Amino acid sequence: MNSSLFSPPTPGQAWALQCTAFDTPRSDALRVQVDALVVVSSTGVIESVIARDDPRWAGERARHAATGQLRELPEGSYLLPGLIDVHVHAPQWPQMGKALDVPLADWLQRNTFPLEARYGDEAFAESVYRPLVRHLLANGTTTAMYFGTLHDGGNRVLAEQCLRQGQRALVGRVAMDEPSQCPEFYRDASAQAAIEGTEAFIGTLAGLPGNAGGLVLPVITPRFIPSCTDALLEGLGALAQRTGVHVQTHCSESDWAHQHVLERTGMTDAHALHRFGLLTRRTVVAHANFLTPEDVALMAEVGASVAHCPLSNFYFANSVFPARSGHARHMGMGLGSDISGGYSPSMFDACRHAITASYALDEGVDPDLPSAQRGRHDARIDHVFALWLATAAGGAALDLPIGRIEAGQHFDAIVVDCHAPDSNICIWPGSDSPADVLQKIIYNATRANVAQTWVQGALVHCRGAVLSNLS
Amino acid sequence: MNSSLFSPPTPGQAWALQCTAFDTPRSDALRVQVDALVVVSSTGVIESVIARDDPRWAGERARHAATGQLRELPEGSYLLPGLIDVHVHAPQWPQMGKALDVPLADWLQRNTFPLEARYGDEAFAESVYRPLVRHLLANGTTTAMYFGTLHDGGNRVLAEQCLRQGQRALVGRVAMDEPSQCPEFYRDASAQAAIEGTEAFIGTLAGLPGNAGGLVLPVITPRFIPSCTDALLEGLGALAQRTGVHVQTHCSESDWAHQHVLERTGMTDAHALHRFGLLTRRTVVAHANFLTPEDVALMAEVGASVAHCPLSNFYFANSVFPARSGHARHMGMGLGSDISGGYSPSMFDACRHAITASYALDEGVDPDLPSAQRGRHDARIDHVFALWLATAAGGAALDLPIGRIEAGQHFDAIVVDCHAPDSNICIWPGSDSPADVLQKIIYNATRANVAQTWVQGALVHCRGAVLSNLS
Repeated sequence: MNSSLFSPPTPGQAWALQCTAFDTPRSDALRVQVDALVVVSSTGVIESVIARDDPRWAGERARHAATGQLRELPEGSYLLPGLIDVHVHAPQWPQMGKALDVPLADWLQRNTFPLEARYGDEAFAESVYRPLVRHLLANGTTTAMYFGTLHDGGNRVLAEQCLRQGQRALVGRVAMDEPSQCPEFYRDASAQAAIEGTEAFIGTLAGLPGNAGGLVLPVITPRFIPSCTDALLEGLGALAQRTGVHVQTHCSESDWAHQHVLERTGMTDAHALHRFGLLTRRTVVAHANFLTPEDVALMAEVGASVAHCPLSNFYFANSVFPARSGHARHMGMGLGSDISGGYSPSMFDACRHAITASYALDEGVDPDLPSAQRGRHDARIDHVFALWLATAAGGAALDLPIGRIEAGQHFDAIVVDCHAPDSNICIWPGSDSPADVLQKIIYNATRANVAQTWVQGALVHCRGAVLSNLS
Repeated sequence: MNSSLFSPPTPGQAWALQCTAFDTPRSDALRVQVDALVVVSSTGVIESVIARDDPRWAGERARHAATGQLRELPEGSYLLPGLIDVHVHAPQWPQMGKALDVPLADWLQRNTFPLEARYGDEAFAESVYRPLVRHLLANGTTTAMYFGTLHDGGNRVLAEQCLRQGQRALVGRVAMDEPSQCPEFYRDASAQAAIEGTEAFIGTLAGLPGNAGGLVLPVITPRFIPSCTDALLEGLGALAQRTGVHVQTHCSESDWAHQHVLERTGMTDAHALHRFGLLTRRTVVAHANFLTPEDVALMAEVGASVAHCPLSNFYFANSVFPARSGHARHMGMGLGSDISGGYSPSMFDACRHAITASYALDEGVDPDLPSAQRGRHDARIDHVFALWLATAAGGAALDLPIGRIEAGQHFDAIVVDCHAPDSNICIWPGSDSPADVLQKIIYNATRANVAQTWVQGALVHCRGAVLSNLS
């Protein structure tokens, strides 16, 4: 951060940002607010977004300039909603981009479980979670929904890092007690122990210094049905119903998992989760590739959402999640990196993979099949849908006022600098409209373009100086 | 470039680089040369690569140190072969990442052809081609095989930019004369005019100041069979046979194109190209999704290669190219970005998309199909295969001594810095082997990690200072 070039607004006071902002109030609607004034309250909430041709614009601008609380984005920089990653396995950060060439069983038993088992050591946890949060903020992820581990201490360290570095987060104490699916060195001793551990962690977060505003929220987190006994799932369901806290788990991800649950419970994952009390308005189920039409209807009725993880779909899910048809049937969804089942921490990458996955589904992939047998059509999403998934849809899935640039939302936002030194976003001023610029951002933005990251009105990452004090 | 920290070796003298180098002599073989000495001749050719445990290592190191011609990569930086992009539409650079949400016909007729038609204006050509070459070098692309336009002047400007900035390149004068497929404002007046234009451009390149070493080579470039008359294809085939210069075109990319050629010529693209004399050891055909087994056998026999463009496959090809089975049947291939049918200029992105495409082919994508009807299996490639595609395979496809770090190859290489400020490559020294590091590089490297780019022994891009003078 080049502090000599950057002058943040005085904390605790309202301020205004003059900028061109992009957001997606709907999956098919890109909103471009050119040279608007985004007024942010002293508590980090967007008070108003005043359009350039609004009669109040000049006065509001002058008022903030007079108090030194006006900032302006330079040409080539744009405001976007902060990116929302609804599925991250925090303890898997050290193996991101590694061991993706081994079979799933090996990946879990030889790589992942032994790694996750190490987070009883809080020093190790801190050595991982501090850079994890820093890297995600640098990639523009303002909110992350995390799977932690079984360890109260390690999970607390993760929550503390989010608070310290200013990332909005939902942190889950993983619960898994089924001996046939979980290794002895990494499983809950009993259903009761896992339920009590989960309840204790909810208390830990509530009492965490600095968390009075609820920046970090707890999540009830059965790993997935195969790794949990019925007693555990019932107990966690009762806890979810009683406390109203968020729930996350995996659901119908692969042929194996889907079939396993069918055989064990006599019903699909979604219906089983519902029976256990785990499907609520604040539930996010990861992957959900193999949902039946009845599952989708149930999810939509309950208001539960899917964490669509397109990249890891290709690697682990035997298929890709049909996002467009799920949305058409009113099911909620957000976008997930699925670190480290997905190798990339960038939600821009996740946007691009969501588009790619939808095209693969739409067109099919195998050239040896006749054209008529390839693809399912009407499955494509575009870059606007993808940005919506990573922002507004994620906010709705989490039941939080984030993901859009409008009054009443938290000021969780990123500044994308198309002129950054390592930028692959190449704008041609004469021929690129603002909508073209946004499309080029979605297709080529990387971490190098994320100049600033803001959460709840606070600057939490700054790549360089892009704001100029106009006062 | 922070020149105060960087001290390049004296030009015109041999020098040595002490480094850990990764390359892929075969599709299934990662070679890791830890702390090796790469000795580069005064003409930019690798003289030898001396292993750390070779008795000559210490002496050679001392000899170069004594003359000030020893450099060393710091911890966290690695030498890789320069990335080879065998399919780039240079004039489409301004629309990269744009208009990907419109139908193909609109994309071609409303966006692409009108844009390509502008390159008769050499000033415009320079305004595009200068940043194009600069951006590709910054992304680590040391060799690019370019489609230009119909304009001798514009194509010369592209070749001049490659020479000036030091990028190895193959530049094609596009030929297209079929009135039913090409708009009046952008097509050759006749087959004869296109053939003469192509021959003239071969001469232009041969006479270009600074090109005596052949850094930039000409390519005979019929756009694809549908846009060319038989007379044009025959004439260009004769020119290819007579001159031995490279050939590039598109081949069996989509259902439409494949079917169109079948109906017009009574044979597949590959066989038609062969009949026209256009299939040679130095031919690269883009996409080639719908090759028949007989096509693959013909390609392998002739020694022609495929430019695999996995990203644009998803968008435009109605399927993905089965790279692994093509390789198993001894067909040559390289990797292409297909700018701007592909939105990314990064060959690391192309590597990742090649892996994703192969997984999609292997597993299938549609969850509504029964498992047994999804996927074709044995289609997966891994990160080693992907790097091989982008380096050694590309060099072989182009019939040039590039793509590996070994004696006799040109020193076309990149330095990947895992500790770059915007790096998403997260290495854990205690648990990541060199092979793990390479996997993490392939999965998360971006332009921000490309610290240096070298072509023929010359430093042509430097992001920061990573070499230290040990003398």
